[in-house]
Amino acid sequence: MAGDPRPIGVFDSGMGGLTVLRALVARLPEEQFVYLGDTARLPYGTKSPDTVRAYALQATHLLLSEDVKMVVIACNTASAVALDALGEALAPVPVIGVIEPGARAGVAATRSKRIAVLATESTVKGAAYAQAIHRLMADAHVEQMACQVFVALAEEGWADTRATTAAVEDYLQPLFAQADAPDTLVLGCTHFPVLATAIQRHVGDAITLVDSAETTAAAVAETLAGLDLKASADSGTRAIRFFATDSPERFARIGAIFFGGAIDDEAVTLVDLKMA
Amino acid sequence: MAGDPRPIGVFDSGMGGLTVLRALVARLPEEQFVYLGDTARLPYGTKSPDTVRAYALQATHLLLSEDVKMVVIACNTASAVALDALGEALAPVPVIGVIEPGARAGVAATRSKRIAVLATESTVKGAAYAQAIHRLMADAHVEQMACQVFVALAEEGWADTRATTAAVEDYLQPLFAQADAPDTLVLGCTHFPVLATAIQRHVGDAITLVDSAETTAAAVAETLAGLDLKASADSGTRAIRFFATDSPERFARIGAIFFGGAIDDEAVTLVDLKMA
Repeated sequence: MAGDPRPIGVFDSGMGGLTVLRALVARLPEEQFVYLGDTARLPYGTKSPDTVRAYALQATHLLLSEDVKMVVIACNTASAVALDALGEALAPVPVIGVIEPGARAGVAATRSKRIAVLATESTVKGAAYAQAIHRLMADAHVEQMACQVFVALAEEGWADTRATTAAVEDYLQPLFAQADAPDTLVLGCTHFPVLATAIQRHVGDAITLVDSAETTAAAVAETLAGLDLKASADSGTRAIRFFATDSPERFARIGAIFFGGAIDDEAVTLVDLKMA
Repeated sequence: MAGDPRPIGVFDSGMGGLTVLRALVARLPEEQFVYLGDTARLPYGTKSPDTVRAYALQATHLLLSEDVKMVVIACNTASAVALDALGEALAPVPVIGVIEPGARAGVAATRSKRIAVLATESTVKGAAYAQAIHRLMADAHVEQMACQVFVALAEEGWADTRATTAAVEDYLQPLFAQADAPDTLVLGCTHFPVLATAIQRHVGDAITLVDSAETTAAAVAETLAGLDLKASADSGTRAIRFFATDSPERFARIGAIFFGGAIDDEAVTLVDLKMA
């Protein structure tokens, strides 16, 4: 079997999606990747669904022009509002978002059917996780909590500082102080895996943390196998290329926090999507 | 003397500028105000100077159409890159930014000529405060520090929580641990006055905190008097109108933190600057 050597495209509004890329890279050692962060236009979370769809279409068309065999939408907002439109526009290239895998993993993990979703304000407002969980488990009790400060803490690289510990306590204490506390916590923002150690320490080992980066990587592996799109072991040495719509220097610097390893800013290409 | 009853226009990329409006309202009880927050396009800090200038021109033209007698640029990024262009475009209406008044107050307050500026990453990178301070005091020693997490803490309304205390310590300890520590701290971001109590407690009363909201209000009062633009006591009851380019509901809710008082979302008009 020769395998399909084409790269997998990964798209995010910024750098948070690099936690998803990190999980993909770890799980799929044979695959090549192209990552695009629309850093000039972030955050998507405060923009209208129409605007987010238009931006996501521009971005994923750039990935198509790089001959990707699959597109991963590593962005909660774009997954929530643009996944169907992107699936249609990019067909036959398969498109996978982060919300469905995160919801599926949350449902698989819970014993008490009480799941909490930590996310950004806009994701909470759109309720996409709650809907996805209820489609899979109609009687699940879902609590959504906006943890906006976590985004800034993760971007500052404060994975486990005193401020992070205090913010985790301030957000999560009310959630776990109640009688019917959740037994499963879905990290519904691509920034939050950076803070996983601090969160797990606060909630204790009895609570399962579900990281949509890991579960999305699992869904991608499954889809690759199902559609016979896997690369073979002799597809060449690992190559990851990065595109950003603003400052490659900042992308490489802040991105390293999310990717969990250095990014050479020479490997980051500046691209103008309005011109693409 | 009849006085000039026209309103003062205040412009910011979002809601942080409401700390400046709050200071203006307190200092100028006779004046009327129109505030515009370009919330759909924030943050300005990550955008190119050309884009920020274009956005700021659109925004301030809307204020002109409301017949304002003066425009206050209550946004550090726009003050840093667009003040000259706005001054030309809006003449003869005077335009005042936040950086010059903040720098002037810092220079007036320091005894040791050692001033620290706390700001956002983009303001630090642009070094507008350092330049403004050096124009006034060539031998000043200026340290700039990006405190990005403060923005999220302020927007969350966490004025003085444990997480805020810890973040203040993490950012400021290195600054004050050195032998020649600053004696003056310029709050170079419109969000930061919300955290002033926590910051002052950490640094102690010997350090002067300079709030560019207060000092900008003083500069506005001075300019009004100088140009004979003051309203008289009988200019009518106080009216403050708000315009936002996205979600009036969110503007009223988060804005109340910065304004230091409730904002009725009925008083917030949604406006599309691209169409204006």
